[in-house]
Order: sequence, then C-alpha cells, then structure tokens
Amino acid sequence: MNETPMDPTTPNVAENQALTTRVAVVGASGYSGEELVRLLLGHPYARLTAVTSRQYAGKSIAEVFPRFASHPRARELRFSDPNAELLAREADVVFLALPHGVAAEFAVPLMNAGCRVIDLSADFRLRSAAVYQEFYGHEHPAPALLEQAVYGLPEFYADAIRETLLVASPGCYPTSILLPLIPLLRDGLIQPDGIIANSLSGVSGAGRKADLALLFVECNESLRPYGIPKHRHLSEIEQELSAAAGRPLVIQFTPHLVPVNRGILTTLYVQPAVSVATEDERQAFLGMVEQSCTAAYAEAPFVRILGEGRLPDTKNVVGTNSLEFGWKLDPRTGRLLVMSAEDNLVKGASGQAVQSLNLMCGFPEAAGLL
Amino acid sequence: MNETPMDPTTPNVAENQALTTRVAVVGASGYSGEELVRLLLGHPYARLTAVTSRQYAGKSIAEVFPRFASHPRARELRFSDPNAELLAREADVVFLALPHGVAAEFAVPLMNAGCRVIDLSADFRLRSAAVYQEFYGHEHPAPALLEQAVYGLPEFYADAIRETLLVASPGCYPTSILLPLIPLLRDGLIQPDGIIANSLSGVSGAGRKADLALLFVECNESLRPYGIPKHRHLSEIEQELSAAAGRPLVIQFTPHLVPVNRGILTTLYVQPAVSVATEDERQAFLGMVEQSCTAAYAEAPFVRILGEGRLPDTKNVVGTNSLEFGWKLDPRTGRLLVMSAEDNLVKGASGQAVQSLNLMCGFPEAAGLL
Amino acid sequence: MNETPMDPTTPNVAENQALTTRVAVVGASGYSGEELVRLLLGHPYARLTAVTSRQYAGKSIAEVFPRFASHPRARELRFSDPNAELLAREADVVFLALPHGVAAEFAVPLMNAGCRVIDLSADFRLRSAAVYQEFYGHEHPAPALLEQAVYGLPEFYADAIRETLLVASPGCYPTSILLPLIPLLRDGLIQPDGIIANSLSGVSGAGRKADLALLFVECNESLRPYGIPKHRHLSEIEQELSAAAGRPLVIQFTPHLVPVNRGILTTLYVQPAVSVATEDERQAFLGMVEQSCTAAYAEAPFVRILGEGRLPDTKNVVGTNSLEFGWKLDPRTGRLLVMSAEDNLVKGASGQAVQSLNLMCGFPEAAGLL
Amino acid sequence: MNETPMDPTTPNVAENQALTTRVAVVGASGYSGEELVRLLLGHPYARLTAVTSRQYAGKSIAEVFPRFASHPRARELRFSDPNAELLAREADVVFLALPHGVAAEFAVPLMNAGCRVIDLSADFRLRSAAVYQEFYGHEHPAPALLEQAVYGLPEFYADAIRETLLVASPGCYPTSILLPLIPLLRDGLIQPDGIIANSLSGVSGAGRKADLALLFVECNESLRPYGIPKHRHLSEIEQELSAAAGRPLVIQFTPHLVPVNRGILTTLYVQPAVSVATEDERQAFLGMVEQSCTAAYAEAPFVRILGEGRLPDTKNVVGTNSLEFGWKLDPRTGRLLVMSAEDNLVKGASGQAVQSLNLMCGFPEAAGLL
Repeated sequence: MNETPMDPTTPNVAENQALTTRVAVVGASGYSGEELVRLLLGHPYARLTAVTSRQYAGKSIAEVFPRFASHPRARELRFSDPNAELLAREADVVFLALPHGVAAEFAVPLMNAGCRVIDLSADFRLRSAAVYQEFYGHEHPAPALLEQAVYGLPEFYADAIRETLLVASPGCYPTSILLPLIPLLRDGLIQPDGIIANSLSGVSGAGRKADLALLFVECNESLRPYGIPKHRHLSEIEQELSAAAGRPLVIQFTPHLVPVNRGILTTLYVQPAVSVATEDERQAFLGMVEQSCTAAYAEAPFVRILGEGRLPDTKNVVGTNSLEFGWKLDPRTGRLLVMSAEDNLVKGASGQAVQSLNLMCGFPEAAGLL
Repeated sequence: MNETPMDPTTPNVAENQALTTRVAVVGASGYSGEELVRLLLGHPYARLTAVTSRQYAGKSIAEVFPRFASHPRARELRFSDPNAELLAREADVVFLALPHGVAAEFAVPLMNAGCRVIDLSADFRLRSAAVYQEFYGHEHPAPALLEQAVYGLPEFYADAIRETLLVASPGCYPTSILLPLIPLLRDGLIQPDGIIANSLSGVSGAGRKADLALLFVECNESLRPYGIPKHRHLSEIEQELSAAAGRPLVIQFTPHLVPVNRGILTTLYVQPAVSVATEDERQAFLGMVEQSCTAAYAEAPFVRILGEGRLPDTKNVVGTNSLEFGWKLDPRTGRLLVMSAEDNLVKGASGQAVQSLNLMCGFPEAAGLL
Repeated sequence: MNETPMDPTTPNVAENQALTTRVAVVGASGYSGEELVRLLLGHPYARLTAVTSRQYAGKSIAEVFPRFASHPRARELRFSDPNAELLAREADVVFLALPHGVAAEFAVPLMNAGCRVIDLSADFRLRSAAVYQEFYGHEHPAPALLEQAVYGLPEFYADAIRETLLVASPGCYPTSILLPLIPLLRDGLIQPDGIIANSLSGVSGAGRKADLALLFVECNESLRPYGIPKHRHLSEIEQELSAAAGRPLVIQFTPHLVPVNRGILTTLYVQPAVSVATEDERQAFLGMVEQSCTAAYAEAPFVRILGEGRLPDTKNVVGTNSLEFGWKLDPRTGRLLVMSAEDNLVKGASGQAVQSLNLMCGFPEAAGLL
Repeated sequence: MNETPMDPTTPNVAENQALTTRVAVVGASGYSGEELVRLLLGHPYARLTAVTSRQYAGKSIAEVFPRFASHPRARELRFSDPNAELLAREADVVFLALPHGVAAEFAVPLMNAGCRVIDLSADFRLRSAAVYQEFYGHEHPAPALLEQAVYGLPEFYADAIRETLLVASPGCYPTSILLPLIPLLRDGLIQPDGIIANSLSGVSGAGRKADLALLFVECNESLRPYGIPKHRHLSEIEQELSAAAGRPLVIQFTPHLVPVNRGILTTLYVQPAVSVATEDERQAFLGMVEQSCTAAYAEAPFVRILGEGRLPDTKNVVGTNSLEFGWKLDPRTGRLLVMSAEDNLVKGASGQAVQSLNLMCGFPEAAGLL
C-alpha cells in the first residue's frame, strides 16, 4: 500500500525479495553495455545477476571496468560466456547489447525459456522484414518475432512495453529525432514531407572497435559527415514518424562525427502545416507547438522542453537520461527549427532500455535514472 | 622576364626592393590577426613593417606570440599603438583585423593617405548601408566607401580585387557556403529558394575574449547551436548568393559551436532545378554539377573538389588555405547535399585576405599560402 | 537493529524525518558547488534545503544547472542571497564552496547559530595561522577556529570528523598526494626527504572564471606547468605528510594544466627507507608497501589499491569518489614511483566533503557516493 | 657569391639543378612520415622524388594525405612499393620512417647504392649493440653500421652530421630531455645522478595504429602514465647524457599519455652541483645556468631559451621545429626544475630530420623549417 519505496527520488531496497528483479546483460563489453552495467549496479529494484562477454569471461566487472570497482557487486560478479539456458535460470529480464544480427539469435532461446528481453540492437525495431532487408542487407533472422516486439520509446509505447516480452530499444539518432517530432506530426502542426534531420554525434556512438578512423588523432580536431544519404537508422525513424503522421513519409538524415565522447545534437528543419506569414499567425502557431509538446510530455520524466528560443546543449544532458529540445520559427524562411540534445549512451541507448525495464516490472519510470 | 621567382611553390625573395610590398596589420592581437602575422612572416614577397595593438604596444611579436619567436622578423618587430598617419608611411597595404564598426574608422584615413586596405571585419562587405543597419544594428560608419569596396572572394572577384584600394574580406561562414553554391546557382542547376546551410564551427571563430561561455570546461564535451535564426553573416551570404542566382533569395543558416580549435564544416541542403526522378536524370544532373564546379574552379588553387560521394573532413584543411567540398544526391528525397570544410582562420579569414593581397600586388595567387 | 537502511549500495529513504539531515550549499555557482548540488540531490539521507549565490539569487537550481532539471527538487529549490542567520534556520549542516578568505566570514556566524560547517576552501586546513599567512599572503581571518577545525580526510580523521562542528575539506592536489603517501610515511617505509609530486590537472580545477588563459582555444592542445615552485596547496600537503612522518618535511610539488575537464593524475617519486639493492630486498620492500597500503585502506570504500605494476588512469575515476593508486619500484634508480588518479571535483572536493557529511551524521560512509 | 638564396627566411629555388637535392621517404604512411612529406613539399632546396608505402602503392600523395592536395607535387607524385635499388636511382638522400628493426634492412642496400640515409627509427641511435639488445629485446640487425651512424641532434653533432652517410635521428622524448640538460651537464652545473624526467606526450607519439587503447573515447578525458620504468628511449637518453657528463649515469624517465594530438612537455628535476643554500649562491648558480644555456644555443635557430621563471607551453611550439625551455630554482628544496616543450612530430621527429638534411647538404640550417 505504502508507495514510498517506489518514489524514484528516494529509492528504497525491496523489503522482500519479490520486489527485486534479476537482470542480466549479454554483450557487456561495448560502450552501451558498460553504461547499462553502471545503471543496473545503481538500480534500487534490479539486481545484476549475470554479465556475459566471450572476451572477458572469468573476469570480474571491477577488473574489466575499473570505474565501477568501488561497488561491491562489481567486485563479486564475473563475466561468463553467453549461454541462453544458463541466463534463463539466473535472470528474469535479459538486456542484449550485441551487434545487429547477433541479438536475434539470443532472443529466441531466452524468450522460449521464459525470460523477458530488452534488445538494444536494431534487430527488432522494424515491423517489416522487407524494410529490414533493404536497410541491413540480409534477411531478418527471426521475422516471426517482429510482430511481438514493441518499440521501446517509453514516452509513446508505455502500455505496450509494460505487457511485452520483447522490447526493441530505439537507436540513439532516432530518439533524438522522434521525441521532438512525434507530437508535432500527430497534432498535424508540421508538414510530413521535406523534414531534414542534421545530427552531430560523439565518437562513442561508433562503438568500441579498433578502427583507424576512430583513433584519437583522427577524430580530435576533425569534423565530418558520414553515412550519407541512407544511414540504417533512417528505417526506424521513418517507420515511427510515418506512424505519427498517419501516412508514409521520407526524411533527410545527415549524421556527422564530432570530437566529444558522448552526446547527440540534432537540428531539425520542418515546415509548419499552417500559414506563418504574419506575426499573428506565427504567434498562434508557436502557441500550438508549445501546447502540443507540453501535452505530449506532461508525464514524461526525461523530456525537458526548453520552449521557444532556448537552445539545447549536450553538456546539459550528458550522463543523464534526459533529452532536451527547443525551437525557433524563422520568419524570413517560414521554417520551424527544432533542436534536441541527448546522451547517446543513456537516453539514446542504455538509460532508455532501463526506462523500459522499469515499465515492464512496474517500477517507477525514473527508478535508477535520476 | 624570368617567371621563376613567381612560382608559388618555390618562392623567391625579390632581388630588388621594388618587388617587395610593405604590409601592416592593425589589431593583431586576436586569432585572425595572429594567423595573419604567421602568414605574412612567411610570405616571400611581403615584408611585415608594422603590427598594432593597444594592449601589446611596445612588445615584440615574439613576446606576444611565442610560436613565431624562431622567425628573426618576429624578434625585431614591435607592436605599436595604431596610428593611421604613421602606418601610411610604413606600409603599402594595411590589413585591418578589428571588430566590426571600428575597422571603418581606420580605413578612411589610411586610404586618404594612399594605402590600400584589406579589411577582415564585416564593415565593407555589404553593398547596401540599409542592410548593414538591419543586421548590425547601427548606421554604417562610412557608407561612401561601400561602393568602392570589393568583396574579397578571389575565386569570383579576382579582377576587381586587383584594381581596388579596399578589399572587404569575406566572413568564415560565408566562404564555406558561397564557394560550393555560387557555381550551381550561376549555372541554374539548383533552385534559389529553400537553401539550408547547417554549419559547425571551432571555438576560435568566437574570438579571443574572456567570456564564460568560451571557457574550456564550457566548450569541451559540448555541442550547441547559437545565433539562430538571424546570424549577421546571413546578410553577406544572401547578397552574394542572390548575385549568383540573378535574383534575391533568402536562406536558412544555422551555426553550431563544437569543441575544436579551428575548422568549419558546412552541410548544404539544396533542390535541383531539374527533375531527378529517374536514374538517368540523376546521372545527367550529377554530370552537370561536376562540370559546373570543375569549370568554376579550374584555375583556383585553393578550392578542392571532392566530387560525388566523397565527404570533406576539417582535418584535411586545418592549417591550409584550402576549402574542400563534395556532394551527394539523395534519390529518396531528390535533394542535393553539398558539404564543405575549411579552416575558419585561414581560408575563412587571414589566408583569404593574403590571397587578395597577392592579387592586388601582382604576386602569384598562392604565394605564401602553400 | 535493522542495518539495512544504512547499506550504502541500496540506500533507503529515512522512514522518519529524524534520519534526514537538512543541508545547504553556500556559493553553489562554481564547479565544486555544482558537483556538491549533484551529489546532495541524489543523497538518500540528506535533504538540500538551501543553495546560495548572489549571482543567481531567485533562480531555481534547474535553471542555473539544466543538467539537474529532471530532479524534482532542482525545480523547486531556488538560489537565495547568502545570509547566515536564515541558513542557520534552514539547515543542520552547511557546505561552504566559497573562495579562500571569504569562507571564514561565513563559518563563524553559522557555527554560532548552531550549524555544523563543511568548508571546501583552504581557510581552515592549516593548523598554523603563520603558515596560512606565509602561503596565502594575508592574516588568517578567524585564527581562533583553526584549533577546532578537523582536516576532512576521512581515511585518516574519521573519528575527529564525526565529532567536530567544522570540517576543513582537503584540496584536490593534496588528496591525490596524501592518500598514497601517508601509509608509507607512517610505517617508515619511505624517506621523508626528497619527495617529488608531479601532478596533472584538468581545467575545472582552475574554477569557473572568465580568464583568457582558460579559454577553450588556449587550453585545448596545450600542456603547461604553472604555480611553480610554491603552490598554495604545498602548505597543507607538507602539514599532513609531516604529521605522518613524525617530523617536518618539505616536498617538491609541480602542477600542470592539461586539456581535460576533470581529473588529477599525480606521479610521486620517493626513496625507500631500506636498501633495495638486491632482488630479494626489492621483493621484501614491495611486500611491505603492499601490506602498508592494504592495511591502511582495508575499510576505506573509496581508495582503490592497484598494487605493484598496475598504473592508474583518470578515466577510471572521473565521476566517482574513488582514488586509485599503484606503484612501481625502479631497480635501476632504486626509486619507488607511486601514481594516483582521482576526480578533482569529487574525491578532490565535493565527494570528499559529502563523505565527511556522512561521518558527521552517522550515515554509511558511502551514502550517496556510489 | 651571393648568399641571398641561402637565407632561410626568404628561401629561393635553386637557379641551377645542382643546388636541388632529390629526397625520398620510405614508410610515409605514419604520422612522422606524413609530417616529413609536409616539410619536404615546402622545402626550397629539396625535391621529393619518391615516397613508399606498401599499403598506399599506386596512390598519389594528394589522395593519401588530402591536406597536401593543393600542392602541385602532391598531385603528381605517387606512392610506390619500397625498393632500395629503385630508390637509389631516384634519390640522393633517403629518409626512413619505418618501425624499429625494419629500418636497418633498408639502410644497408641504400647506402651500398650510394644514398645518404636519415633514419627516424631507433635502429642506429645506440653506439652499443649490447645496449640495443637489452632495450629492444633482439640482436641488432646491422651492428657494423653503428659506428658509422651519427646521432642526429644538430645542436651538438652538426659537424659529424655534415660528413656522415647515416644519420640516426633522435627520438621525441630524448630530444625534449637532452637539449635542456646537455649544456648543464657539460658545464658541470648539475649532478649527473638522480635526474628525473617526467614527460607528457600527445597521442600521435604512439603512431597510427588500430589499437583500442588509442581510440578517441579511450584517450579523450584520460590521463595515464605508461612504459614505466624502462621505456626504450631511456637507452639513448642515458647514452647522450652520459657523454655530456663525462661518465655513465642513470636517469628516471616517466612518460604519460595525455589527450592532445601533438606535443611533449617534459619537467626535469635535477640537483645543482654547487651549494644553493643562500640567496647569493642561488643567484650565482642561476647566472651560470643562464650563461651555459645561452652559450650552448647562441647559434641554434630552434632552441628558444625562456630563462628563469618563464614556463613553456606546448601550444607555443606545436607545428614548429622549436623546442623552448625555462627553469626555476626551488629555494625550499634546493632543486632546479627545467621544463621543455616541443612538437613530438617536428622537433621530436621529422623537423629534426630535415634539420639534419640541411646540414648534410650545405643548406641553411633552418631551410624549409620556418
């Protein structure tokens, strides 16, 4: 009855074991996996019971990620080889932080064994196996699961996330684009056509891999576009924006690599659906934008609306699960600019996955994330 | 008659004094001024005879900028208080690296005293005093000179630069936008309306000033838009693009601050003026784009055309006077993306000004810039 | 009886108000103050009841530090003008994050009004007013309090911290030097004379102030020593090392500024107190070093001993309250190198202050710090 | 007769071919090789006739290093497979920018074919094959050449460099230590024993190789010691310092990796050879230090003596061939601190190698380096 233990700002350990959920992370050696481990070690209602990595099997979390070594659990828990059967015995919910294509292989046996799965890869984000094949270049490994999977954007799919056995947690770029645009498209305030998303990403977004192009000396003091014009994330962005608009749409998406460890800044160029030729029309339109966003995120703990004229900065969100966005209407061009900032590893990956965990398990949505 | 000494790749000192031009830099304490000093110290046909700065008067260049201290001239030459009369006796050409509004005050007496002036501020870039007032918020200090001033973009105004007494050297953002777009607009390949320029700039672009927002800790690991939607540089960008298009146009320009010392990366979104619905149409269009750019810059030593599908990177241009750009046609949206990279302090400021000096004095265009 | 609520890894909100301590931060606008606010917002047993800053009076924490805006308390609590009388009514413990010299002015009235004070400045770190005057260049503002103040290094002064009304929280550099060396000096394993401490610090250590030397462009791609040879922190370092050695000693301390936001890396050069000429002697000595450190920090949650041959890295400690250190004996020179890493704003400032709060209030030492 | 063409500040192309030296770079794909190419493309008396790299064979310099693409020679010259016989026909002087152990293989046939060789690896830096084996872990591949090789520190071995067929260009760390200390040791001003060199290096010092530890995210916001206590460079440092001191000595050398692209900052801790107990003695000693350094480098174009109390900063030397150093005597400890800054790729590698080229060929020492 007492709701106090569920207050996310003053987390309480579960008084009885029933309130604690056993969680595992498969593929915990990359940047997203590491961030997941950080969040789960500090989570008040989840207990990390397994972490897997072929490369680190046998080592403790503290050895692999010294920054967590002060945490007692990090000194106890050792990496194991990934084994679905064993994991299913040790965990109630399993996070998959694996490369695209590999995640599906693990999801099936885990779900068969009764686990709930939160997948951070792109394997289950698309509803259509054909679109998957178009963008990822190979057949979908488990098309039967696509219908079952829920796109893990808690601000819009909370009810489905609560019920599902399989969450497909969104990509980092998509999150930075979808949260600012879905309300405006749903409410018919902007034109579905002609949207441009210009994004800047920190280098952790490229993953922890020994690639010359990702060396310090190659990235520091370097600014570069890449993945143009058909980045894989386009597929899920267009899927979700189309759903919001109520009809298919195509967008322009341009990612850039910039020398920060973390953070995505997205600048969106959109056309109002109404005339903004006069000052009165502009004020009316801006009022509707404000209202649309405010209403959409009234209950959302992690979406911070900066409003008209206030601009985001990734340093305000790095290390947090928040996405902030603001906008500006340009009277000279009639365009609305919407700009968002998030941490690609938290709201763009692991934090958002934990938000889904909270919904799935009936925890406060912000548990472990403030 | 022997042209060898004028070969820019193997610069020769003038055998007789007549070939050497005496140059001065007024306001040499900022980042652009420092870069100008660097270039002029190494210039084969120019002799730096005066540098001014109220703050540093009496100190040698070597003391103020230790990085130049190995250069004998930097140990000899001392900063003086700016004085137009004295400068006019010491220099044939004077560079003004002063804040907007202050430059005009110096230009008039210097020109009256017979100097040629290359101004790096915005004071003489606009042809219209009214537009100046709209964007800079005060009356133009010397409107009579606006007609006389030549916009110092050597790739398009070389003849006028050669003749003029007053060069208004372009801004850093404008250069990164104008060079890729002018040929396409002139040749009618893209629509003049709806152009979007999304730019990223290193922090030196904000100048050397004690401002909390420019502290290391505030900029490092930070990505942020600013100056939206009506950055002052818009005025000169639109002036020059309109001239290229043959009719007035308005563009969308969004600058962002990112944590590098130097470099501007601009991503331009434009609409082809012809249909690109079929693959054949697209190939034809791309062929025309290639041809337009190649023809425009056939003789330009500092514009590097990457062509279709090759993307720029600021680290390829930092420290050089080159601007590189490439493009990509997105068949899904029908848009052409053009992306450019330059060093904001070199091609975006001081290098370009030296390029004008070379034209004014009849030196090889690349002298001192390779 | 039930110790569970005090388990630092699963913090519990106080069931009754008596367990919650009201805390205030005076001077919360700098980097240390901001970090204190972060830690206290997330603290399970402390309630932030006041933050002061002349500059930000009237604004909410969320407005001044948007990164905390998702925290409900940050949206409620507004900055006020600093007023000792009011603070004394609102808070049980007051943190002073003020410049040196100013802190003492606040400490006296706060303590008179019954508050306990944790001062992050240098005002109360020295036991001798004369040494204070030598290093800080002016008379000590409240010499009577020096005797009462406890040096807030929890690993060595826990009992005194629990009892005192006034904690003088150590400086960032001193912490990085004292924790590795105190055990070795206490146990007589190293010579008290000839110690060298070579430290590298991130730029946040210089504070949030509009200073040209701290601009992004001046710090990025720059490495420089400063404050040589008599940095103010020397006074407290030598005071504490002398206490550990049982006799006065003088050390060499060389700070350097390097382009990271946070982190201190200290490399210590010391001489063994015993012969290490043979391999057997070296092994015996290394065994004693290991034992000395292990024993000293057996109960210390935030000191991570890397041991022989493992080297620290600031990225393992940034964002945490941990200090890690390792060592290496050089058989060629006979010197012992001890190397430590910490976050200058956490273990080097605000985290350590919260550790003192925990001791003063009877909370688990790691509460709010894992 | 006319010395003008040899004035390094106003370089002149050779009027007749005889004055131009043909140079080649073997292994031009790493950071040092790239920097060599940059310097040689701009060199007034050298003509780059061949660059080799297995990886890039067939590509032009402009394709591999776009930053040089504005230089006509970079567009003409293509990488070839390394072939000693061919190189010997194309070049008078060959630079080897190869890994340790591989360089020796190329040096022998090139020298046999009549080329002069400047080797940037460590293969020929040591006079003793036994010390080589101790530090590099394998037998020296061409011990017969060790006697012939000259250590390419132009400030001390200019005469021998002029005459030799084989220059062993010094390492980056050694240069930063030797230049400040050799005069003081030669003049007997400091004690040969007990010297400590604490160095910070930018990441380019680790080479261009796909190594997880060198990724942007692993290096940015990271400070770490490495290679302790017996870095390979110790061998040549001790060899040269011993020669200066006139007797064998052993030093302490501690390299650290810090997040800059370029630059080495070294802080040296040494003991005066005379008493500095009184202020008079200290002034006398400092006078001798000043005199020793000034005399040693009176003719050295690239050593900048900052003198007493002025501290170096890598940003003053990055991109230049200068090393700057200053010092400070600590009256409390009696130690002299000497601090130096250089660009690891220029004075610490490629610039210094070009300085040797200039000496070997009778060019002005600073040709192509200002």
